[in-house]
Amino acid sequence: MTLDPQRFLDDLHVLRSFGASGVGKGVVRQAYSDADIAARRWLAGRIEEAGLEPHFDPLGNLFGLAGENSLLVGSHSDSQPEGGWLDGALGVVAGLEIARAAKDAGGPPVSCVSFQDEEGRFGVLTGSDVWTGKLALEKADGLTDTAGSTLADMRARMADLAGDFLPHGRFTGFLEMHIEQGPYLEETGLGLGVVTDIVGIRDMRITFEGRQNHAGTTPMHLRRDAFQALSVFNTELNSRFAGVVTAATVWTIGHVALHPNASSVVPGRVEFSMQWRDADAGRLARMETLIKETAQDVSADHGVTALLGPVMGIEPAAMDARFQAGLAAAAEELAPGKWQKMPSGALHDAANLATVMPAGMLFVPSIGGISHAFDEDTDEADLVLGLQVLDRAARSLAVLT
Amino acid sequence: MTLDPQRFLDDLHVLRSFGASGVGKGVVRQAYSDADIAARRWLAGRIEEAGLEPHFDPLGNLFGLAGENSLLVGSHSDSQPEGGWLDGALGVVAGLEIARAAKDAGGPPVSCVSFQDEEGRFGVLTGSDVWTGKLALEKADGLTDTAGSTLADMRARMADLAGDFLPHGRFTGFLEMHIEQGPYLEETGLGLGVVTDIVGIRDMRITFEGRQNHAGTTPMHLRRDAFQALSVFNTELNSRFAGVVTAATVWTIGHVALHPNASSVVPGRVEFSMQWRDADAGRLARMETLIKETAQDVSADHGVTALLGPVMGIEPAAMDARFQAGLAAAAEELAPGKWQKMPSGALHDAANLATVMPAGMLFVPSIGGISHAFDEDTDEADLVLGLQVLDRAARSLAVLT
Repeated sequence: MTLDPQRFLDDLHVLRSFGASGVGKGVVRQAYSDADIAARRWLAGRIEEAGLEPHFDPLGNLFGLAGENSLLVGSHSDSQPEGGWLDGALGVVAGLEIARAAKDAGGPPVSCVSFQDEEGRFGVLTGSDVWTGKLALEKADGLTDTAGSTLADMRARMADLAGDFLPHGRFTGFLEMHIEQGPYLEETGLGLGVVTDIVGIRDMRITFEGRQNHAGTTPMHLRRDAFQALSVFNTELNSRFAGVVTAATVWTIGHVALHPNASSVVPGRVEFSMQWRDADAGRLARMETLIKETAQDVSADHGVTALLGPVMGIEPAAMDARFQAGLAAAAEELAPGKWQKMPSGALHDAANLATVMPAGMLFVPSIGGISHAFDEDTDEADLVLGLQVLDRAARSLAVLT
Repeated sequence: MTLDPQRFLDDLHVLRSFGASGVGKGVVRQAYSDADIAARRWLAGRIEEAGLEPHFDPLGNLFGLAGENSLLVGSHSDSQPEGGWLDGALGVVAGLEIARAAKDAGGPPVSCVSFQDEEGRFGVLTGSDVWTGKLALEKADGLTDTAGSTLADMRARMADLAGDFLPHGRFTGFLEMHIEQGPYLEETGLGLGVVTDIVGIRDMRITFEGRQNHAGTTPMHLRRDAFQALSVFNTELNSRFAGVVTAATVWTIGHVALHPNASSVVPGRVEFSMQWRDADAGRLARMETLIKETAQDVSADHGVTALLGPVMGIEPAAMDARFQAGLAAAAEELAPGKWQKMPSGALHDAANLATVMPAGMLFVPSIGGISHAFDEDTDEADLVLGLQVLDRAARSLAVLT
C-alpha cells in the first residue's frame, strides 16, 4: 500500500481528540499530562499496527522503528498550554504515514518519531535536547515547570513505558514537516517552504535604575525616570540596528516591569526583556554589541544605571544542503513554482537533530499566521500536499543514504 | 506666653510616637487607623489644655476652636502607608502652637485644624473634600480603600467623638505650612517658599491595542507591536510638548501594563497612565489636546487602536493675593532674601480651602527632596524658622480680617 492521504488526515483528527479543548480545533496536551501520555500510547499502537517497532526512551520520546540505517521523520505531539491541532502533531502523523507507506512498499526503511516536551514545559526543546546530548538527563531531571513540578517526577508517570536511549547512529538523517507559524507563505501565495536555517536566539534582561520620586514635585530636569530611559533606548536601538539587520532579522521588547508602576510616581526602575533572532551568528553578535553600547550610552546620558543580565543563546542551525535540495526537488515536481526557500524564525527539534545527523524541514502555510492558539489552522489540501512532498523527498533521501 | 519653638518641637516628636515605624523618623499612621485615632485624641487633649475648644466633625476632621471669626491654621495628621514624621503633622502642630500662643497673648483669635485622610486612603483629600462641599458625604461613605473597607465603616470607628460639620463662615481664612516635598528650596538655598498656586492635575489611561504574535515568526514589517507604539507616542509627545510647557510643568508615564508581557511574544496590548500638572488650566487643556492628537497619529501610523480613557481633573488653585503678601512680608522680615515664590506641584488641603475662604501656604525645605518615605526629614532650625514666619503672617492676617 502506498501513501494514503485520507488515513493521514483521519489519524490527525484522532490525535486531536486527545486533549481537544477550547474553541474550534483547539488542543490542551502539555508534555506528561494525561492527554499527552494517552496520545503517545495510541501512537505506539498505530506504530505497532503498521509493523514498526514502538520504542519509548527514558524521556518519553516515542520512536516507530524500521530496520537499521533508516531515515527518521517526525516532530512532537505535546502542545502548548493552549495550542492548536497541528503544530508538532502534523509532523508526527506525517512521519507515521510515510514510515508505514515505506514499510508496506518494501522501500528503503523510514522510522518515525514524536519527541517529548518540544514546547518547553521544562526547558526549551527538552526531549530532543536530552537525546542529542545538549542537556544532561541529571540536569534536566531537576528542571521545574511553572507549578513547581520537576521533570523527574513527571517522566516517572511514563516509567512503565520507558526503554533505553537509542544511539543516533541507527538513523541516517531527519526530516520534519511543520506549520510555518508565520504569515510569509500565505502572504506570498507560495504554499511550501524549504527551510534553509533555523534562526539563533539571543535573550537578555536589562534593568535601568533611576530615582523614584513624586510626580508632582520633581521638576523634569531633575528626574532620572527609568521609563524615559527605556523609551530612549528603544528608539536609539531601532535606529542603530538599521545598518546591521536584514528583512529576516527580528527583535522584540516583550516584557516590561516598571517600579513602583503608579501613575503619581516617577518610575525609579524598569526591568525589560530584549530578544533578537537571526540565522547568522555573526549578526547576532553585532546586534549584542549594539544593545550593550546603546544601554551604556543611555545610562550615561540619562542618569540611570544599566544592569545587563547574562545573554542566553540558542545557536542558529543550518539545514543540510543535500536535504534542502531533496525537499526542493520534490516541491518543484509536485508544486512547480509554488514553493520558496526560507529561514525558520521559530525553534524546532530539527535544530537539535542537525547537530547529530543531516536534517531538513518543510513548512506548510498557517492561516493568518496564527499559532500557539486554539484557532491555529491550515487547509487540508495544503496538509496533503506537504505530506506528498515530504514523502517524495524521504524516499529519495532514504535511497541515497 | 508667646510662641514657644521648643514646645512646638516637643509636640511634633510626641505626635511622631503615634505610629512610629520603619527606619529613622518613619511613621505609619493612615487615616482611621488605631494610631491615627489615638493621635487625634492626644491632639484634642493638647487643644483643651491650651484653652481652645476641640471639635470633631463627622469625618474626623479635628478643629481647635478660638472665638468666632478666627483665622484657621493647620494641615493633616494622617500619613501615607509608609510616611515621614513631618508631611502634614508639621502644619498641624504649627497651627496648634500659633493658636495657643495667640490665645495666651490675648491676640486676634486663631483656630487650628487637622484634616482627615489628606493622603487619600479613600479618595483624594477626603476630609477637606467633604467639608468644603466638593464631595458629598453620602458618596464619600461608599468609597473603599485598597483592602475593600468603606469610609462609612472606618469613620464609624470615631463615631463617639463626632460632632456636627462647622460652618465655613466662622473662619476668616486658612494658612498651611508644609514641607516642600521637592528639591527646589534645597537646590536654590532659599529656605522658605511662599506658594503662588497649587497646580492642577490631569490623569488619564490610554490603551494601544495592536496584534499579539510570535516573536520569532512575525517579520518586523508586519508587526503591530503595542510597546513600539507606546515608545513612539512618548518620544513624539515630549517633542510636541516643548513649545507649550514651562519649567514648572511636569508630565509622567508612571504605570505601564503590557500584554501578555512575555519575552517571546510581540506585545498585543499596552495600557498606561498619562499624568500632567500645571498651575494654568489653559495649558493643561492644550496639553490634553496634544496628548489626544499624538495618540491618534501613532494609532494611524502604527496599525494600533488607541483607546483614550476619561480625563480625571483636579483644578489649579491660586493662593489669595493678600495671604501671599502677608507670608512674603513675614519671610522678608525674618529671613531677608532667603525666600522665594513658587507653585506647589503636590496637592494640599489649601487647594480645597481656597474654594471657600482666602488661603495661603508656606513651604520649608525637604532634605534631598524626599517625601512619602520613612527617610523624609527637615533640619529643626528650618522648622522653627517656618513656624516663626507663619506665626508672624497669622498675626498680621488675623488682625486685618
